[in-house]
Amino acid sequence: MQKGGVTLANRIEKDLIGKKLIEDSSYIGINTIRALENFNLHSKTVNHNLIKDIALIKKAAAIVNKNLNNLQAEKAEAIIQASNEVIEGKLNDEFTISAFQGGAGTSTNMNVNEVIANRAIELLDEKKGNYDVIHPLNDVNMSQSTNDVYPTGLRIAAIRLIRKLSNSLADLQEALQVKENEFSDVIKLGRTQLMDALPMMVGQGFGAYAKAIERDRWRIYKVEERLRQVNLGGTAIGTGLNATNKFIYMITDVIQDLTKLGIARSDFPMDITQNCDVYVEVSGLLKSCSVNLLKISNDFRLLSSGPKGGLGELKLPEVQAGSTIMPGKVNPVIPEMVAQVSMRVIANDSAITMASSMGQLELNAFTPLIAESLLESLELLNNAVIIFRERCIEEIKVDEEKCRENLEKSTAMVTALIHHIGYDKSSEISKQALREGKTIREILYEENILSKDKIDQVLNPFEVTRPGIPGK
Amino acid sequence: MQKGGVTLANRIEKDLIGKKLIEDSSYIGINTIRALENFNLHSKTVNHNLIKDIALIKKAAAIVNKNLNNLQAEKAEAIIQASNEVIEGKLNDEFTISAFQGGAGTSTNMNVNEVIANRAIELLDEKKGNYDVIHPLNDVNMSQSTNDVYPTGLRIAAIRLIRKLSNSLADLQEALQVKENEFSDVIKLGRTQLMDALPMMVGQGFGAYAKAIERDRWRIYKVEERLRQVNLGGTAIGTGLNATNKFIYMITDVIQDLTKLGIARSDFPMDITQNCDVYVEVSGLLKSCSVNLLKISNDFRLLSSGPKGGLGELKLPEVQAGSTIMPGKVNPVIPEMVAQVSMRVIANDSAITMASSMGQLELNAFTPLIAESLLESLELLNNAVIIFRERCIEEIKVDEEKCRENLEKSTAMVTALIHHIGYDKSSEISKQALREGKTIREILYEENILSKDKIDQVLNPFEVTRPGIPGK
Amino acid sequence: MQKGGVTLANRIEKDLIGKKLIEDSSYIGINTIRALENFNLHSKTVNHNLIKDIALIKKAAAIVNKNLNNLQAEKAEAIIQASNEVIEGKLNDEFTISAFQGGAGTSTNMNVNEVIANRAIELLDEKKGNYDVIHPLNDVNMSQSTNDVYPTGLRIAAIRLIRKLSNSLADLQEALQVKENEFSDVIKLGRTQLMDALPMMVGQGFGAYAKAIERDRWRIYKVEERLRQVNLGGTAIGTGLNATNKFIYMITDVIQDLTKLGIARSDFPMDITQNCDVYVEVSGLLKSCSVNLLKISNDFRLLSSGPKGGLGELKLPEVQAGSTIMPGKVNPVIPEMVAQVSMRVIANDSAITMASSMGQLELNAFTPLIAESLLESLELLNNAVIIFRERCIEEIKVDEEKCRENLEKSTAMVTALIHHIGYDKSSEISKQALREGKTIREILYEENILSKDKIDQVLNPFEVTRPGIPGK
Amino acid sequence: MQKGGVTLANRIEKDLIGKKLIEDSSYIGINTIRALENFNLHSKTVNHNLIKDIALIKKAAAIVNKNLNNLQAEKAEAIIQASNEVIEGKLNDEFTISAFQGGAGTSTNMNVNEVIANRAIELLDEKKGNYDVIHPLNDVNMSQSTNDVYPTGLRIAAIRLIRKLSNSLADLQEALQVKENEFSDVIKLGRTQLMDALPMMVGQGFGAYAKAIERDRWRIYKVEERLRQVNLGGTAIGTGLNATNKFIYMITDVIQDLTKLGIARSDFPMDITQNCDVYVEVSGLLKSCSVNLLKISNDFRLLSSGPKGGLGELKLPEVQAGSTIMPGKVNPVIPEMVAQVSMRVIANDSAITMASSMGQLELNAFTPLIAESLLESLELLNNAVIIFRERCIEEIKVDEEKCRENLEKSTAMVTALIHHIGYDKSSEISKQALREGKTIREILYEENILSKDKIDQVLNPFEVTRPGIPGK
Repeated sequence: MQKGGVTLANRIEKDLIGKKLIEDSSYIGINTIRALENFNLHSKTVNHNLIKDIALIKKAAAIVNKNLNNLQAEKAEAIIQASNEVIEGKLNDEFTISAFQGGAGTSTNMNVNEVIANRAIELLDEKKGNYDVIHPLNDVNMSQSTNDVYPTGLRIAAIRLIRKLSNSLADLQEALQVKENEFSDVIKLGRTQLMDALPMMVGQGFGAYAKAIERDRWRIYKVEERLRQVNLGGTAIGTGLNATNKFIYMITDVIQDLTKLGIARSDFPMDITQNCDVYVEVSGLLKSCSVNLLKISNDFRLLSSGPKGGLGELKLPEVQAGSTIMPGKVNPVIPEMVAQVSMRVIANDSAITMASSMGQLELNAFTPLIAESLLESLELLNNAVIIFRERCIEEIKVDEEKCRENLEKSTAMVTALIHHIGYDKSSEISKQALREGKTIREILYEENILSKDKIDQVLNPFEVTRPGIPGK
Repeated sequence: MQKGGVTLANRIEKDLIGKKLIEDSSYIGINTIRALENFNLHSKTVNHNLIKDIALIKKAAAIVNKNLNNLQAEKAEAIIQASNEVIEGKLNDEFTISAFQGGAGTSTNMNVNEVIANRAIELLDEKKGNYDVIHPLNDVNMSQSTNDVYPTGLRIAAIRLIRKLSNSLADLQEALQVKENEFSDVIKLGRTQLMDALPMMVGQGFGAYAKAIERDRWRIYKVEERLRQVNLGGTAIGTGLNATNKFIYMITDVIQDLTKLGIARSDFPMDITQNCDVYVEVSGLLKSCSVNLLKISNDFRLLSSGPKGGLGELKLPEVQAGSTIMPGKVNPVIPEMVAQVSMRVIANDSAITMASSMGQLELNAFTPLIAESLLESLELLNNAVIIFRERCIEEIKVDEEKCRENLEKSTAMVTALIHHIGYDKSSEISKQALREGKTIREILYEENILSKDKIDQVLNPFEVTRPGIPGK
Repeated sequence: MQKGGVTLANRIEKDLIGKKLIEDSSYIGINTIRALENFNLHSKTVNHNLIKDIALIKKAAAIVNKNLNNLQAEKAEAIIQASNEVIEGKLNDEFTISAFQGGAGTSTNMNVNEVIANRAIELLDEKKGNYDVIHPLNDVNMSQSTNDVYPTGLRIAAIRLIRKLSNSLADLQEALQVKENEFSDVIKLGRTQLMDALPMMVGQGFGAYAKAIERDRWRIYKVEERLRQVNLGGTAIGTGLNATNKFIYMITDVIQDLTKLGIARSDFPMDITQNCDVYVEVSGLLKSCSVNLLKISNDFRLLSSGPKGGLGELKLPEVQAGSTIMPGKVNPVIPEMVAQVSMRVIANDSAITMASSMGQLELNAFTPLIAESLLESLELLNNAVIIFRERCIEEIKVDEEKCRENLEKSTAMVTALIHHIGYDKSSEISKQALREGKTIREILYEENILSKDKIDQVLNPFEVTRPGIPGK
Repeated sequence: MQKGGVTLANRIEKDLIGKKLIEDSSYIGINTIRALENFNLHSKTVNHNLIKDIALIKKAAAIVNKNLNNLQAEKAEAIIQASNEVIEGKLNDEFTISAFQGGAGTSTNMNVNEVIANRAIELLDEKKGNYDVIHPLNDVNMSQSTNDVYPTGLRIAAIRLIRKLSNSLADLQEALQVKENEFSDVIKLGRTQLMDALPMMVGQGFGAYAKAIERDRWRIYKVEERLRQVNLGGTAIGTGLNATNKFIYMITDVIQDLTKLGIARSDFPMDITQNCDVYVEVSGLLKSCSVNLLKISNDFRLLSSGPKGGLGELKLPEVQAGSTIMPGKVNPVIPEMVAQVSMRVIANDSAITMASSMGQLELNAFTPLIAESLLESLELLNNAVIIFRERCIEEIKVDEEKCRENLEKSTAMVTALIHHIGYDKSSEISKQALREGKTIREILYEENILSKDKIDQVLNPFEVTRPGIPGK
């Protein structure tokens, strides 16, 4: 290629379709070029966690193939070194293919193959594109297929993020339990269907949140084991053509060693190559977690509403100014962010479900959408959970006075009367209290239905927040 | 078949698979029997609106085939009479196949064919099952295929329900506007992100709901036209094999005449036979309507919350006792029902979307799921909208005192100050008011920033609920 | 009430809103009447599995309250007897409230309370409606609240259905494994992204399906334990007001005894009263199962397509005639039904997710929608799985000739060449074969690239369906 | 701030929470800093289309406020100039807040306010951060609120993308119609439920796709009008406090002028501030379009499957190598990409629906999620539609021989016999043909049911692809 008399450094690559010029500074090859053109959606690029763990598989394969003498030591070392650079993120700029790509991940796998090949060639002091030195397919992809490499890379990347999320959820649970203790004797009005119900302690509410998050943490922690089984060595359709049994056993060991994760060889790789139900299972659990986060964040928004014209019982930390027009207004932006992340995770789940259900025969062509959605959900949830804890929950305060005020003006105590005066009479008193703007206690005193002592005993607010029948 | 020595009346029918005994009292045939066995899910049966409009098509086809001399007058008359009975619901018990059936509606179409044939045979004083007299396929199904009859029946049934819903939404809009007027000068606190924002009139809130419902009504009203085009005469794949052009033109006219709906022949029936995007479009609009109903019903629940320990600004009519344990508790059960119907419609939309996207080549095999979901959504929404209006909205009252109280204790007025003292100073005053538990007005009086007259002018609550800068 | 001079037997009941006439033949009370009017949607009624297990809780409560001397033995016995009749389905006609009801299940609970009370009154030879004898709330609902009874009933009902589904999935897995063995040496073409890929055995395909269903079975089996914890005794908001600790411990034991299920008391009932993530978790697993069923049923439809103009490799049993216009056409109606049930389950999951995420504070008002969706999903899936096995999978046959034919005309064998002649040369030969309409073997013979013996060794179809490098 | 004795250029800003150091090279202010910290999710940043159209509103407001003498001409000019730079994308690097932000868009609005203010200050040769010169709120945000600016910016951005998509769909429809004509006399087998059905022309299939896309185009084109109404001037809750009527009328005119779009002032801005059903409506139509794209892309994958062991009737252009292990394999990557984009749009619709339904009272706090999802869907769909046309549809070829072969070996012709020999006899012949491996024609010749002439007339393949009864 010539520009103004100067020969620019470009190389030519060809494939079964034709030729392409590639800038010599770039490590990508013709397959990457094709993918950039074919999926030119200007949208998200492939998640880098996935790229890195595919590179890790390339490294593992090179180690094994060197040991099996399938690959010269010098070539293998160069591939390993190049893979390390990808893993360390040094070559991030070479990976810009759209996350929404056709080909079941072939383009991503080829992108990694080509970048590692060209970087390895360079390390061997040869010119990029000289695939006689190191070939993206024959050498870097040796004994592999996209259809085993890609889901294995996805599983490793997912497990790493699952562990982070599991830890973040444990911290969240703990933060909620701290508040459970902190507010264990602040009495407030409990509400069902948003209507005044029974008295409770503010701490009990945080305890209920903590229990829900405890389940999430446990689910996320346990589901890792479903992802551990990989189809590496299954090659194109899971039958293992072109991968020897020796290779299959050894590469699983090497990957275990490199990742320190309990990655295991599936006894039926065809299953993993074509079935995506495990991603649906994991995503379903992320959805359960999102449902809990939505519930908690909505409750926080409700309980801190006002601060004057709403419930106003909780005080969330102020983290930013809330309005460009209403001075002094502060909004619950952290719970709002958490709610939106949760909804995004729920939407991602619907993409994962649909894509997984549309697999056909020996492969699911839509794994790139699954991968993008699942890894995004994991990353978003993890970060949202951390921010939720640090910037909201740990700093929550209670307006004890407001709590008491809301409780006192309600008829929440009336349920404690049922065992003493029956349901129908209690119901009448409740209506009377609302009608006359009086408290239950006041009505009871006036009506002489029970003795004053009995009334005080029955309506003891601390008795009514635990099992039993006050006054009996 | 023998029971206790008595030979019960049964007939035998056969098909390409084998034979089946059928109780002689029943009008169904072997194809219906097969479907009952194959789809024995104990779940919902086919929506009767669909059955009736398929019967109407049978009637129309018999009229046309009689006129074209394809069918003897006597046979045609019997078929017409039998169809009328199905349309009138007299034979409802004969239609019990599961709504979730394979076969793209063939079983439903055959169910109708068989019941009409046997009832018509009976009308001709012959024995049920004697298909030489009238044949379910050769006669009742003459010139038709499930693949044109079924979607046409679905469209007619949907249009009828759409008209009902459109009217119900018009009534709902009107009811909201009545409240808009009724509460047009009751001032209250407006809230954004649940936080105290600016003053507004209660009526303005109802006006905003009315506007949203007005759009829904318009959308539902307009979308009918998308369903009017039918593929009747397209037969199996839309090419029209075995249906003459005369038949196609005449049957559309007859159906227009029978239904008084603007049903029109598609100029490309293959399109309608295989593409289901129109159902997705209609369902998408039902979803928009559901989103508005969710918003409104959630707002009602919020604004009527308490009644003492919540916002308590609206008073919903009491329609049933609310608790088995808390005497006197009344819950917002109508909005809660409306919310659940809305969520069901949203869920049905996801079924319709998925099923519609999975059509293949010349047909969508999953139209029964689409039909069931769409007709259920239409019926549920229509009934929920009527109940919402009659049992909730028309009887809503406002607690004016509570509205004023919530407004007064908030700092909602501070925005009116910006043009007089700037954003930053206004922000300070707002914080001070919250900190010291005073009203904005009190702070201003104390601080001597503006004259008392000016303050009163700026904070005039009726000025701050309309465009403009109070005090300028 | 008078009709033509005859005084009909009616009774009058009243509640906090007013009075209602009730036909004396009916066992329902005024709360049920209100609910019938308020939720008059003409849609599905409450799932009878739920009704029965709520009645079971009533029975258990009566047993415990008798033992604790809270309830006279005679009254308790009558309640127990009446409960048994509901459990046996004898009073099914009394339960017709809409599944989509407001009130978080209060109406369903009251419906059960009233029917049991009136039936128990009748058993004591008193007149229905005479609640001095047995009171729906004071007696039948004693120590309970809708908010603990309803979720507990739902959990018991769900566990029962989960066990059925788990068993059905085990049978399905076994049926698939039978086919895995039956077709273990029938060679066919494997396809990725619907394109000719590598050879495989028909049995291997069934093996992959069996593995997926094995996971489903395991998941469904294991998730039961998440539902075992109940909040019975938590009453209205989970704090336990009005339920003694003795009652709480004893009723759990009684329910274990009555159900033979491992029902356990939650150590934090407030959690269960307000958090619905467990339903999302269960439904998410049903969704995973649906994804597998969709995949398998779609594959069956694809592999049996034609039979002449499609892939035609599998022969599904013929279960009904397929067309009203195309004689002899038989359609894959069972897989089509399974696919639709699967999509419905996925749609139900979206309703469950949305409803669960919208819980507020101490209760989720939308549990009726969750209950209806979850129980429907469980019932539909269970029945579909049974029919799928019995009416489709167990009778599947293979067209071995068609399998061989499809494999032979493809270039699926070319991958076996890579280790012998490299990727690029293999690619060329593949293109040449397609271009010239020849088989890979023919090209190789002509081209003299490898010896004939080597070629036969490399292309041995049985070598290429297992791990390893044929010819090395 | 000091580093190694050198005072680095930093400025300090403060808000109601505290102080922040800002690098002096940056144009952002403290509100942007807070948002970067609070929503530090490492995910997508705010869509730049939205940023640009919010900047356009700032420009319009400055023009109007200058004309109304609310803003000094010099300040206004600087703001206009700075806004232009944002619109041109020159300051893109200043906009990096997460798309998933709390605060209903306040952070995005403040980000724009601050960058424009600081750039305008700079243009006036003052130091960034010196807000006495130009204030982000008092000047740049004058007469505006996030709650009117943000939805207006979103609507303008959406309309621009809708127009692009409408045009791309028109091109797609045209490309399909070109193929409809090109293949108008290539006969092939039509399939219903994937089973051999009736003959049709390849062109007819493309015609059906074109019809579906024609509807999409029309819907997208028409829906623009729903987005034209804006709430600009409504300020915080839509009542218009602090925006004069003059301002409201003039700014709409200026925006019309700047955008050349038919933007119109809503007569009830409160409606638009709080109701999001219009986004649900638009997204619902994008979903309808996605359903059609899924159908078409799935059909293409099916019809081009093989190429040898599948249907093989269509030949898609080869755009990239398909496998890292199977030489010569080429996959339908463009339809696969289109399918994944379609599923993403469907998932985005579920996020939009959920977020829209969760608006409360005078505002929807979740508009940032709605905005991100809607704009992404529009961009993705538009690009996918263009690539689908250019890289797939325009280059599709037909394998006429394969089409004929698939048709001939099927029994598709048998339907043409019904009017001559009845349904039952036709059914028998069909079964016989399948059983004996003969064609319908062969059986008829042998069986002497009809004369040879009649047979040829009835089975004329070109007659059977249009309405009518061949041979009658």
